Amino acid sequence: MFRHTKQLAYKVRVDKPNPVFAKMLQQAIGGVEGEIRVCLQYLFQGWGNRGPDRYKDMLLNTGTEEIGHIEMLATAVALNLENAPSRLQEEVADGDGVVTAILGGEDPRHVLSAGLAAMPVDSNGNPFNGSWVVATGNLGSDMLANVHAEASGRLLATRLWEMTDDPGMKDMLSFLIARDTMHQNQWMAVLEEQKDMGLPVPPDFPSSQEKEEFAYEYFVHSDGEVPDDARWTSGSSVDSKGRFGVRQAEPMGDVPNLAPAESRPELHSTPIPAKGGVLRKAKDALTP
Amino acid sequence: MFRHTKQLAYKVRVDKPNPVFAKMLQQAIGGVEGEIRVCLQYLFQGWGNRGPDRYKDMLLNTGTEEIGHIEMLATAVALNLENAPSRLQEEVADGDGVVTAILGGEDPRHVLSAGLAAMPVDSNGNPFNGSWVVATGNLGSDMLANVHAEASGRLLATRLWEMTDDPGMKDMLSFLIARDTMHQNQWMAVLEEQKDMGLPVPPDFPSSQEKEEFAYEYFVHSDGEVPDDARWTSGSSVDSKGRFGVRQAEPMGDVPNLAPAESRPELHSTPIPAKGGVLRKAKDALTP
Amino acid sequence: MFRHTKQLAYKVRVDKPNPVFAKMLQQAIGGVEGEIRVCLQYLFQGWGNRGPDRYKDMLLNTGTEEIGHIEMLATAVALNLENAPSRLQEEVADGDGVVTAILGGEDPRHVLSAGLAAMPVDSNGNPFNGSWVVATGNLGSDMLANVHAEASGRLLATRLWEMTDDPGMKDMLSFLIARDTMHQNQWMAVLEEQKDMGLPVPPDFPSSQEKEEFAYEYFVHSDGEVPDDARWTSGSSVDSKGRFGVRQAEPMGDVPNLAPAESRPELHSTPIPAKGGVLRKAKDALTP
Amino acid sequence: MFRHTKQLAYKVRVDKPNPVFAKMLQQAIGGVEGEIRVCLQYLFQGWGNRGPDRYKDMLLNTGTEEIGHIEMLATAVALNLENAPSRLQEEVADGDGVVTAILGGEDPRHVLSAGLAAMPVDSNGNPFNGSWVVATGNLGSDMLANVHAEASGRLLATRLWEMTDDPGMKDMLSFLIARDTMHQNQWMAVLEEQKDMGLPVPPDFPSSQEKEEFAYEYFVHSDGEVPDDARWTSGSSVDSKGRFGVRQAEPMGDVPNLAPAESRPELHSTPIPAKGGVLRKAKDALTP
Amino acid sequence: MFRHTKQLAYKVRVDKPNPVFAKMLQQAIGGVEGEIRVCLQYLFQGWGNRGPDRYKDMLLNTGTEEIGHIEMLATAVALNLENAPSRLQEEVADGDGVVTAILGGEDPRHVLSAGLAAMPVDSNGNPFNGSWVVATGNLGSDMLANVHAEASGRLLATRLWEMTDDPGMKDMLSFLIARDTMHQNQWMAVLEEQKDMGLPVPPDFPSSQEKEEFAYEYFVHSDGEVPDDARWTSGSSVDSKGRFGVRQAEPMGDVPNLAPAESRPELHSTPIPAKGGVLRKAKDALTP
Amino acid sequence: MFRHTKQLAYKVRVDKPNPVFAKMLQQAIGGVEGEIRVCLQYLFQGWGNRGPDRYKDMLLNTGTEEIGHIEMLATAVALNLENAPSRLQEEVADGDGVVTAILGGEDPRHVLSAGLAAMPVDSNGNPFNGSWVVATGNLGSDMLANVHAEASGRLLATRLWEMTDDPGMKDMLSFLIARDTMHQNQWMAVLEEQKDMGLPVPPDFPSSQEKEEFAYEYFVHSDGEVPDDARWTSGSSVDSKGRFGVRQAEPMGDVPNLAPAESRPELHSTPIPAKGGVLRKAKDALTP
Repeated sequence: MFRHTKQLAYKVRVDKPNPVFAKMLQQAIGGVEGEIRVCLQYLFQGWGNRGPDRYKDMLLNTGTEEIGHIEMLATAVALNLENAPSRLQEEVADGDGVVTAILGGEDPRHVLSAGLAAMPVDSNGNPFNGSWVVATGNLGSDMLANVHAEASGRLLATRLWEMTDDPGMKDMLSFLIARDTMHQNQWMAVLEEQKDMGLPVPPDFPSSQEKEEFAYEYFVHSDGEVPDDARWTSGSSVDSKGRFGVRQAEPMGDVPNLAPAESRPELHSTPIPAKGGVLRKAKDALTP
Repeated sequence: MFRHTKQLAYKVRVDKPNPVFAKMLQQAIGGVEGEIRVCLQYLFQGWGNRGPDRYKDMLLNTGTEEIGHIEMLATAVALNLENAPSRLQEEVADGDGVVTAILGGEDPRHVLSAGLAAMPVDSNGNPFNGSWVVATGNLGSDMLANVHAEASGRLLATRLWEMTDDPGMKDMLSFLIARDTMHQNQWMAVLEEQKDMGLPVPPDFPSSQEKEEFAYEYFVHSDGEVPDDARWTSGSSVDSKGRFGVRQAEPMGDVPNLAPAESRPELHSTPIPAKGGVLRKAKDALTP
Repeated sequence: MFRHTKQLAYKVRVDKPNPVFAKMLQQAIGGVEGEIRVCLQYLFQGWGNRGPDRYKDMLLNTGTEEIGHIEMLATAVALNLENAPSRLQEEVADGDGVVTAILGGEDPRHVLSAGLAAMPVDSNGNPFNGSWVVATGNLGSDMLANVHAEASGRLLATRLWEMTDDPGMKDMLSFLIARDTMHQNQWMAVLEEQKDMGLPVPPDFPSSQEKEEFAYEYFVHSDGEVPDDARWTSGSSVDSKGRFGVRQAEPMGDVPNLAPAESRPELHSTPIPAKGGVLRKAKDALTP
Repeated sequence: MFRHTKQLAYKVRVDKPNPVFAKMLQQAIGGVEGEIRVCLQYLFQGWGNRGPDRYKDMLLNTGTEEIGHIEMLATAVALNLENAPSRLQEEVADGDGVVTAILGGEDPRHVLSAGLAAMPVDSNGNPFNGSWVVATGNLGSDMLANVHAEASGRLLATRLWEMTDDPGMKDMLSFLIARDTMHQNQWMAVLEEQKDMGLPVPPDFPSSQEKEEFAYEYFVHSDGEVPDDARWTSGSSVDSKGRFGVRQAEPMGDVPNLAPAESRPELHSTPIPAKGGVLRKAKDALTP
Repeated sequence: MFRHTKQLAYKVRVDKPNPVFAKMLQQAIGGVEGEIRVCLQYLFQGWGNRGPDRYKDMLLNTGTEEIGHIEMLATAVALNLENAPSRLQEEVADGDGVVTAILGGEDPRHVLSAGLAAMPVDSNGNPFNGSWVVATGNLGSDMLANVHAEASGRLLATRLWEMTDDPGMKDMLSFLIARDTMHQNQWMAVLEEQKDMGLPVPPDFPSSQEKEEFAYEYFVHSDGEVPDDARWTSGSSVDSKGRFGVRQAEPMGDVPNLAPAESRPELHSTPIPAKGGVLRKAKDALTP
Repeated sequence: MFRHTKQLAYKVRVDKPNPVFAKMLQQAIGGVEGEIRVCLQYLFQGWGNRGPDRYKDMLLNTGTEEIGHIEMLATAVALNLENAPSRLQEEVADGDGVVTAILGGEDPRHVLSAGLAAMPVDSNGNPFNGSWVVATGNLGSDMLANVHAEASGRLLATRLWEMTDDPGMKDMLSFLIARDTMHQNQWMAVLEEQKDMGLPVPPDFPSSQEKEEFAYEYFVHSDGEVPDDARWTSGSSVDSKGRFGVRQAEPMGDVPNLAPAESRPELHSTPIPAKGGVLRKAKDALTP
């Protein structure tokens, strides 16, 4: 169960409202790198967690923190929209009839659909999509997903920080950047606690059942140089279970051989040679 | 530029065609954990890579390998569909009028839309979506994405391996599982080569600009227990740049205060008190 | 800011796990009628609310309640999946080679992608989509959206209640049905408090600016009978601002007349008559 | 069956073409508040209606009217695009190398994909999505959906009306605003005719089967003030079937308890403690 | 403007309702090959048509016919659903605890969301998507799109016809198959009338501006055999403007050379060598 | 299996980087007319092809060529982004508080998400969608799809060519335009080789089973004029199997008659007359 406190998790101040920056901030709300994604990701991982409890608790705890980050960013968007234009500017046509009127580069739906408020969409107006939420039941795989989610989230936040000169916005982003630092560390800490969960994920598939001879070979499919000194071409594998090697890719399979379409006339798939009557007869022969 | 060889990268054999397993295999083609995703992900990372070349080459090389994995799986789907039913079975109605006829649990579009072939969709028929492709220009972030992509891909492949008894399919999956082992190692090897790229991503944001006091604190938003012995609550942080601490979450911001809707009557947003005439007058006063 | 309590908002018990019912319950989590939608809808309405505070508080309060409903349903899905099959059943081929093996009618991704846990998708596996979240800044419009959201949510819950015989699931659904009763009443109560916000939404558009002669006419575009006694064809309008009438639809506009494609040769739009050279010359003449 | 008349339902005139306004108008065509949605919504409700006929007829009738509204708006978009630029303007780079060239703020696909015509997309270029169409078979629920759809549509139309100074466009929008007034009244009229269909929807779920003690309680999940005088906290409920009350939210359920992942080794879900051999043995023991 | 007639365009009769066939029929309503797509495609092509009028009229005329086909199919779905089960069947658990209960293979949303009626989705429950609607302003390109749309639609209809034994459904599909025959002919007839519009589309791009030396060469990127007798490897091209040839693919471009990430430190893209301080200094030097 | 060559298929040069043109080029990468679509379309058609081999080889061959076109365009986007602004420009507020700051009209995600590189999205930032890939198993239908795909792709390329003055970009587009010429010819050549596959598709449906009397009639649903001299209203049909005729559309079906909702009380569909008790009793009577 959840509870709400009216105060924000951290202060959100906009010194100079800017509807274009409001549009940019949407990426951090409803984008693939955004807070709705990590919020639902940690909560669904927690709700589906089948032990141990220490990880379930932690996932739900931090998922709950993230709801508050959506709240902060939604507030930041609303504040940045306070002077957003709601009318088309005077049109100026040059000699070639080119209309230069713009609506400030803002997201048109911030005016038309939301009335100057945040939406669960990204900076191009694409809606948040539930397919981005990763929760597999495998804690090792999910921790890797989480470290990446926080890495891409922190990268986005630093790019937004560079993009603006607004002191209030820079302050808020600095807080979020710090939290993303913590969360990257936090998910890595789980991997460190349970080293056996990692590399390769899942760790409990019996190696005797996998084609071990291909498990540590770098396959070369390109005429690009293979560097002599690369970590991934020689020496012990990162998972310490094999030794890296290099192999020029050659096909190990045959040319595929599918049953001809003629055997399934009722699908009307490939009428070649398209002697309809014959096919029809074939079908009649095949189906009682 | 790319070239194609008619033989498959590895042998694909289906001993006992099963259209339900064909549907399951779609997850490994067009699903979020599937091969189209990793293929495009590595290729787009390579095409956008701005140095050093050794990583660009490697990304394009392995992205090219993955096209061949889509090819193998598409062939496996087509072979599994060779006996797929194309007609509704005889209906059997029980006393309550319940129709039990089914089309074998197969994906109906394998018959209706594809004529017994693979499609770029997942096991529920959801189409592949380009938003899943991660390529940020930041090599550290992208390598984390790639390690996770291969982890979730290998996890999927092991679950498919457990699901079937078909020797041919088990053999093919064993090969793919091995390649996912290599690729997890490969992306980790890059992170190991360039330790400075990692944790926290991006590594070059000046720590003086982030709220360092919150960068290593575990915020407690839940009444779940915080374990004494957790790696993420005390001791040196995983990135070795701070020490973990614990903080009961308390709001550090204010209650948000947005400009009232009345100041923007042209948006017809919140007519409270809904005295239309007054709002209209207000608007007339505000707009020349 | 938000906080989490480990206990569920209401008890969730599954007496007889059923993976098919788990799939059905997904509609109430990630479907268009589901809890993620209402949760985000109320929270975004609250975060964007520009007064009065009593409504903002209420929206955030009830949005927070809804997170706990997602939690309950996610738990119910996980419990229903506890005996979900993870292997294809023995195949049974009839004389026509029809494979009847099924995986119990369950969502294949419950096994393959989620490892027996809930996902933010609907009962067909379609991911939750942010475009479903309605938050316009107009409280009257949003309250209508909310009444509808709860109506369709309660309708879904009653259909799920009828579908199962599991006492635990029926009990949980009875609780959710009751909450949907309250929430329908709650949003209606706001409309009752602020009658001026309602009908027609938005209420502050000056009637002198709308084509009032068409504002209360039932246009007849069909040869279906227009009932004599219908509430919408005569008498005072529901908003008490006009009187209903009936009008046989006749076009009031002209046949549209667009500038011919020939005037924009650079778009290569409609080469009719397709005398390329002429078009090219026309273009050369038009562009300096 | 349907028939078409070449003249438009109402006159569409653009005095001063503006491709930016064309982009804005797309929201009213292919957006979630747009005409394709209401058109398909009323038609699908009508086609699926199982009585009485008076409502089926009315739904199909008004759905047919809405096709003509899509036609009007598509014409308006095409007319607004008649002077749309099709070339990048001369680039102007300032000292920081910032390119300010823009294509007039227009939707690039209006030129590239549509050749100066409307598309079934919204103002951000997101395609129309069939998931927005509500048709449940429950007339009360659907009427609420329809009232809301017309409310959000009229709100959008008034915002578009405020955005432009073009007399022709203002005239067309005034007509659409009037029709949205009628349609809001029309769907409300159905609810008034059949009061028993309303609040709470569906009305025929036996109250003895719902947890009545929670059906009229306002649950407090937030530390925001609960207003003394709110319509939703005391007095008779809006549906007249109960009395509103207030309850501080406390969990009524237990901490969820899911079966541990170890019992399903074939899912490779949570290898903790990750002693692969042990898990494998466990699996061998569990599966014959 | 549009009008509706209550009678269906053609008779729709279901002799033996079958909810699984209802699900299959959805592909013909909301699938990529379905009637909503062609309906909107022809209407949008007509609304955007910039001459000559004979084609605009024809497009709107046939687009209107297609609305009636959606109506027929929606009726067929509703009739097929009349005995759809709405409860989970008795569960049967085998020795491994496998639940075999299914809901008849039907679309769960036909019960849960639509109350036994059609929806604008495909046979997997994926919603109709506006991105499928092709309308480019180029009549030649659009006619090709339309011929294909009718070809895939007729293919789908014949597969549905083969799938069912219901005489009513076979009769209805026979009518739709005939109309698809006409429409394929109709769009081809336009191409025949205006031969200059065709091959290659668009026909008015000056051949002097295209790399003519590559316009009729079959590039060989595969080691598959190039047949001696293929129509596309020798002889006059189909458009009669060139002669086919064969060329072994060799790269004609260079290895791409992108500006290094280091020049844009504010993007935090690739910290290699990851000497943060240095990058920061570089940035400080670059930005005043 | 696939191999990669580091050199590009054709030279890609950008003389004057322009981030707005980078955004436009995205349409040719991830748009519905773009290269990812044709690439996957030809590959999936090839992988699913069930003979003859000459077509399978050709499809895989040309699909492989198209991967290289994605590569060229991705490189072109990256080069055009090399001077993309990454900061909001100085805001300029006019008297009405309108902010005119823009980020150059570029795609914000080119900076925020991709770090100055291409993405698998279209020019509005909509992600590539697998539902666009057509592969039906019917070669005739697929060749029509392919001719159209190349026609719309060439149309897009010519519009992009007209949009820019950059010599490098014009050169690259000229190459792609030439390849689209070849590919249109190539797919037409297949249709010419196998004339029996074409019109009407599929050709093997027995004409005796289709309603032949409607297979060559132009149905008139509009009051637009039917031209005397149209190819599609008289004379031999294009497929030479019938003679065109004209028919005023009249309904041939009945008014649909669905079973009333009352017979399925458990769906809570339409409570009219909403006498809950009665319905409940009815249900009790109907269900044992």
